[in-house]
Amino acid sequence: MRHFLTLKDFTKKEILEIVNIGLEIKKDLKAGIYKDELKKQTLGMIFEKSSTRTRVSFETGMFQLGGHALFLSNRDIHLGRGEPIKDTARVISSMCDMVMIRTFEHSMIEEFASYSKVPVINGLTDSFHPVQLLADYMTMIEYGISENAVVAYIGDGNNMTNSWMMLSAKLGFDLRIATPKGYEVDSQVLETALRLAKTSGANITVMNDPKEAVHGATIVTTDTWASMGQEDEKAQRIKDFQGFMVDDLMMCLAQKGAKFLHCLPAYREQEVSEFVLEAHANIVFDEAENRLHAQKGLMVWLDKQK
Amino acid sequence: MRHFLTLKDFTKKEILEIVNIGLEIKKDLKAGIYKDELKKQTLGMIFEKSSTRTRVSFETGMFQLGGHALFLSNRDIHLGRGEPIKDTARVISSMCDMVMIRTFEHSMIEEFASYSKVPVINGLTDSFHPVQLLADYMTMIEYGISENAVVAYIGDGNNMTNSWMMLSAKLGFDLRIATPKGYEVDSQVLETALRLAKTSGANITVMNDPKEAVHGATIVTTDTWASMGQEDEKAQRIKDFQGFMVDDLMMCLAQKGAKFLHCLPAYREQEVSEFVLEAHANIVFDEAENRLHAQKGLMVWLDKQK
Amino acid sequence: MRHFLTLKDFTKKEILEIVNIGLEIKKDLKAGIYKDELKKQTLGMIFEKSSTRTRVSFETGMFQLGGHALFLSNRDIHLGRGEPIKDTARVISSMCDMVMIRTFEHSMIEEFASYSKVPVINGLTDSFHPVQLLADYMTMIEYGISENAVVAYIGDGNNMTNSWMMLSAKLGFDLRIATPKGYEVDSQVLETALRLAKTSGANITVMNDPKEAVHGATIVTTDTWASMGQEDEKAQRIKDFQGFMVDDLMMCLAQKGAKFLHCLPAYREQEVSEFVLEAHANIVFDEAENRLHAQKGLMVWLDKQK
Repeated sequence: MRHFLTLKDFTKKEILEIVNIGLEIKKDLKAGIYKDELKKQTLGMIFEKSSTRTRVSFETGMFQLGGHALFLSNRDIHLGRGEPIKDTARVISSMCDMVMIRTFEHSMIEEFASYSKVPVINGLTDSFHPVQLLADYMTMIEYGISENAVVAYIGDGNNMTNSWMMLSAKLGFDLRIATPKGYEVDSQVLETALRLAKTSGANITVMNDPKEAVHGATIVTTDTWASMGQEDEKAQRIKDFQGFMVDDLMMCLAQKGAKFLHCLPAYREQEVSEFVLEAHANIVFDEAENRLHAQKGLMVWLDKQK
Repeated sequence: MRHFLTLKDFTKKEILEIVNIGLEIKKDLKAGIYKDELKKQTLGMIFEKSSTRTRVSFETGMFQLGGHALFLSNRDIHLGRGEPIKDTARVISSMCDMVMIRTFEHSMIEEFASYSKVPVINGLTDSFHPVQLLADYMTMIEYGISENAVVAYIGDGNNMTNSWMMLSAKLGFDLRIATPKGYEVDSQVLETALRLAKTSGANITVMNDPKEAVHGATIVTTDTWASMGQEDEKAQRIKDFQGFMVDDLMMCLAQKGAKFLHCLPAYREQEVSEFVLEAHANIVFDEAENRLHAQKGLMVWLDKQK
Repeated sequence: MRHFLTLKDFTKKEILEIVNIGLEIKKDLKAGIYKDELKKQTLGMIFEKSSTRTRVSFETGMFQLGGHALFLSNRDIHLGRGEPIKDTARVISSMCDMVMIRTFEHSMIEEFASYSKVPVINGLTDSFHPVQLLADYMTMIEYGISENAVVAYIGDGNNMTNSWMMLSAKLGFDLRIATPKGYEVDSQVLETALRLAKTSGANITVMNDPKEAVHGATIVTTDTWASMGQEDEKAQRIKDFQGFMVDDLMMCLAQKGAKFLHCLPAYREQEVSEFVLEAHANIVFDEAENRLHAQKGLMVWLDKQK
């Protein structure tokens, strides 16, 4: 049995397997073919932070696979409050066939997984967002930009940045990360990524100059400057992130035909201009839709390892 | 592809088609026959206002049709907050096959629909409640009171009144609306209804005297005096609506054998007396159940137009 | 048509039938066999108090039986507020095939049931928790401890105690209840249980000395000292319940090989020690999982009585 907590635990081959299963299931779906790969299975979804995209993609995906997804919000369950996580994990995993958790501290999901009898999927923690990266990479394949990719991540050093570092380190494409001073990436994750990159051949570089990062990139991406829970810091962050908006001028510094990705929700005229987002709306909303397909691939893959 | 935002956009023929599909599916259901008309399809349900009836009818209906309904409450999603409606619409409609929205401003649902790749259903706005009218008309057919109907609506000039005007204008039956002074119907909706009524032959009249409206009516109906969000005005409204309770005396002014309809929830001894509601409980709770059947008819019809 | 509000309304034969159906369905499930006993049926679940265990077990169970469970939380519905219970009952039971209610006052569920057109299941009230006892008895059968059982209940005289009294009175096993002074069991329920016990041959005794109750018991069980809604009294209760923790010393007074049961959530070092809970983790988490199987048996049984 395998859990999906961070890409660090997966080989390049496994990541590609997952994405490819997702692509096959997507092709079937568009052709109206359903194979009920997870027939009668139940996915318990624990949301300590709410999220429309994660919710809709997992619930719809599980249903299309012949299963059922059960939505537990933070009004229904509080991990580690009332009863210890180990009890919750033992109970829920005795009734469900898989569990998806969206929470704050990464250690919570690790503890849950260690007591769970069924596979646990990370639907977002403060440290990592690996299912988003599966969707991103699926989108890169579909748009023919996965080979020799040079990805520029512009913005906050957060869970998305950590996950991009892991994907790059595992798959071997180049990644430049530009953050404002004081918002650098987690140094431990960076260290791990640099170590793994020696094997894959990825060049991972961090800097504070967005223009330098974007120069010659084939893919530019960013994320909100203030994630959920950081709303208080928003005004200060907007000040500190001046010059980090991905606008038309910045896109001009990238390679001709460079694509823009965004995991959404997007805050216009903050991390991205309205113009850039709408100019790249096709790929951005395909990327969002690919959450559905990539996660279906993941769940089917995890079920096979049981 | 068609949306279902208001009855104004539908012809008499289309409205009857929808109701008739609903009646057929209801007959099948009572006989234990399921045809899985919407097999594997997902309905995204966005509730910015909560509602037991709307929730249970859509979720049960979609399941009985072979699909799945996904419940997003106002704790899970806020239309137009966090991200623009156009983004939410593009994301959700890329993962779901149909979307039902219950919200406040009608313009919100119009904007969502304009960006949606799949049909959008109005599950109630401040302006219209068209799915309720489908259930009401289905009930009128079942009770044999749809031909030559004379409907008296007694009470607040609200979204239910607007929807009755649209149904009457389209189908051609007579409608008298009595509201207290200051609670008149929306003048623009009335104007549209009167214009449409010229074609259908409906007589639509508005007044402030409930007795005049009820005199000779074959159907009497009303709605709560204070809809959701108007709780603050409740005391004032109860004062202003004196004389507008549908009680036994008022029913006596209607035609012999006149029926009473109510979209529920009903507030006893306010818009309707306990006696009248319970005397007409059969038709009123059939009307509530018909939300299920009428909406199934609607969803199947919308799917056919794709 | 039958409701399942308290074990008082059921014969020994019926209780055993329900548990046995549950055991058969559990065997099928473990063998990957699904018979869709409740195909296309909908269970309305009304939670006025939240509960992970009850929620997951009913929703997963219904799905595995071919049906769908619809989750209405106290943010979606308030029994008896807004509209009278009789209206809610008539509406929901016209759209759903079965209803599960978790609420406070037992009279609420009785009133709902009296107006419901479909079977109503008690998912917990302030007075009774009968579905938990079905799971408990299923566990006793599986562990070979149902014959000649001597059950010691140590702790608060609450809905769990009431339900144990009913089970004992109906099935005929011995039950000793030790509560602190001031936390005694409901005298009316005790009186009923003692009357019923005359037929079944059960010895039901109440006392204030936990050691006396545990002496020679084959099964020891307890429940949280402060149920939901009693959080304010928690400090006082912890004081009053000194000496009532089921710890290793107390288990030593029971029969050799005695088992420990707990309906969860468990509060360590309050009603039970960490050591005792973890030493009996296998049976306790099987007991939790059996909520799923026992309730499936119940729903199938109720459906057969329609």
